[in-house]
Amino acid sequence: MRLHKLVSLMREGNFDGALISPGTNLYYLTGLTVHEAGERPTILAVNADGDYGLLAPSLYENVIGDFPVTFWRDGENPYEKLAWILAELHLSGGRILVEDTMRADWLINVMKLGPFEFHPLSSLVRELRMRKDAKEIERMKHAAKVVDRVFEELLSWDLVGMRERELALKMEMTIRELSDGISFPPIVASGENAANPHHEPGDRRLRRGDMVILDYGARWKGYCSDITRTIAIGRPDERLVGIYETVKEAQERAYRTVREGIPAREIDRAARETIAEAGYGRYFTHRTGHGLGLDVHEEPYIGPDGEVVLGEGMTFTIEPGIYVPGLGGVRIEDDVAVQEGRGRRLTRAERELVRV
Amino acid sequence: MRLHKLVSLMREGNFDGALISPGTNLYYLTGLTVHEAGERPTILAVNADGDYGLLAPSLYENVIGDFPVTFWRDGENPYEKLAWILAELHLSGGRILVEDTMRADWLINVMKLGPFEFHPLSSLVRELRMRKDAKEIERMKHAAKVVDRVFEELLSWDLVGMRERELALKMEMTIRELSDGISFPPIVASGENAANPHHEPGDRRLRRGDMVILDYGARWKGYCSDITRTIAIGRPDERLVGIYETVKEAQERAYRTVREGIPAREIDRAARETIAEAGYGRYFTHRTGHGLGLDVHEEPYIGPDGEVVLGEGMTFTIEPGIYVPGLGGVRIEDDVAVQEGRGRRLTRAERELVRV
Repeated sequence: MRLHKLVSLMREGNFDGALISPGTNLYYLTGLTVHEAGERPTILAVNADGDYGLLAPSLYENVIGDFPVTFWRDGENPYEKLAWILAELHLSGGRILVEDTMRADWLINVMKLGPFEFHPLSSLVRELRMRKDAKEIERMKHAAKVVDRVFEELLSWDLVGMRERELALKMEMTIRELSDGISFPPIVASGENAANPHHEPGDRRLRRGDMVILDYGARWKGYCSDITRTIAIGRPDERLVGIYETVKEAQERAYRTVREGIPAREIDRAARETIAEAGYGRYFTHRTGHGLGLDVHEEPYIGPDGEVVLGEGMTFTIEPGIYVPGLGGVRIEDDVAVQEGRGRRLTRAERELVRV
Repeated sequence: MRLHKLVSLMREGNFDGALISPGTNLYYLTGLTVHEAGERPTILAVNADGDYGLLAPSLYENVIGDFPVTFWRDGENPYEKLAWILAELHLSGGRILVEDTMRADWLINVMKLGPFEFHPLSSLVRELRMRKDAKEIERMKHAAKVVDRVFEELLSWDLVGMRERELALKMEMTIRELSDGISFPPIVASGENAANPHHEPGDRRLRRGDMVILDYGARWKGYCSDITRTIAIGRPDERLVGIYETVKEAQERAYRTVREGIPAREIDRAARETIAEAGYGRYFTHRTGHGLGLDVHEEPYIGPDGEVVLGEGMTFTIEPGIYVPGLGGVRIEDDVAVQEGRGRRLTRAERELVRV
């Protein structure tokens, strides 16, 4: 269990305790998979001695194995029981880390239990989570293989005339058959819709002359993949074909920049310069990438202000794009891990422009 | 916009302001549909004079129409901008309502902006949300019709030999074709798995002699339906057929109890007594129902301690069940609205035992 690593960091940072609600941090630190806590308080309390206790609703009785746990039933006051746990851990006040995604109503009730000073848990846990071990990388590779295979499969589908939302649904189904599920709802942005990097799949039908952005991901044993490919249907506008080559070069140059010891912003700069040199600087409107792991967005973020220094085992996306209103857009995204000091692509689907 | 109703309640309750993050309350009060706020702070601030301002990340620029909004860009400190909004609203301290599901890290940052005393927003908004108006009921009726139709359709599928997870997926696909999506992931619990009311669909194949619990819901224009039917494949154990009749009677008696002016717990009692009289009291291990609307679980909860007095326009489920370890289980659930003083079922799928 990785909880002892957090406890070491807590001592270094002079924190007295941590309160962790369900989510990827709880899973990462303890292996506990508590789904859908909903509105019922479920909180792991940890002190700086490494002692801990879990508060959980009684409906989880069969889910939680040999963990020190205090159950509460519907009708009981869970915060009374949390107060007992905190008393046992000698956590009656002080500097406390709180899971970032904990519901505010839980935190409001915790405030009443003592003179606490709260800090976001992620500030410590992200240091641990950023560097994946071999087992984590294996899971990410598997999630990446799934999306590579989905790309191959979808090229055989009869895309012309299909609605964006139909294609997105069919991609989701295929991902779900091959993995533990999607890591986020697939994006299909066709024709002029591809000019909006935040487009949601709609009723537009794919047609000849479209460039189509496909952005999707799978989850495997908790870990995410996230890939984007842009395909051509028939013969798109030649400007878009040129834009494709620019984005591909930007992605390649950014990828080749990856090495241990450089700050994340250098990857972003490599992509951004390539696109600016081609005259499309103002049409690259987002960061070059984001960390990837148990969450589909996590540290290290790969943007102009990315100060994280790359280290062994870090995993992130590289996904430059160009979006020209009224014309369309192109994005190419791979998942990359820092291994033996260099970048390694986890996603390997075809990067040359595929025409269907 | 219903925000003025909240402002009236705020004045009555001596609250100085409210901070509302994206979710069903924000949608209910303002009509704003801001999806997936993720980690980027998005907060509507309201004061007791009814003045308000929205903080939002710049990527929502195209989503938010004519709303008083202050955008922040990646790299800027959103809480600095929130402080300006609060200053304009004269909210430098005092009793503040906070959206229950707001992320704790946002609240931790808000704490630094003044001497606030926080209270959960739901304590006020639930009074409004519990009573649905005619338009809301119409949407819920549509969501209910969708699940009725899915039940008819699935009876024509070749169920024998199908895995629980396959059936759940096929049900999900059908719901998504007919509505805005599922209101929660469908539950399929077959044979002995049906003895666990929290079962997740797995690899077990449906076979002759099974009773199968099917619990699923649709969403339409924000509003949810939630239905459970239990079907027989071939000839299940006669004890289960007897249990089915008991659950059906409990559900019917609970439904007939519904009328304006009674506390919710009386509905629960009617179901619980029927099941106890048949000798299965200890096998009915959950509440009889829950409120339903924009959320799939909301007030009023229909349990032994349900003190909400039923009023016109309230909508909730009635879903008694009996779960016998080693044997199996039965649950029957309908969505019910209080209309003209009495209960009206919104879901109307066949309640007699269907044998396929």
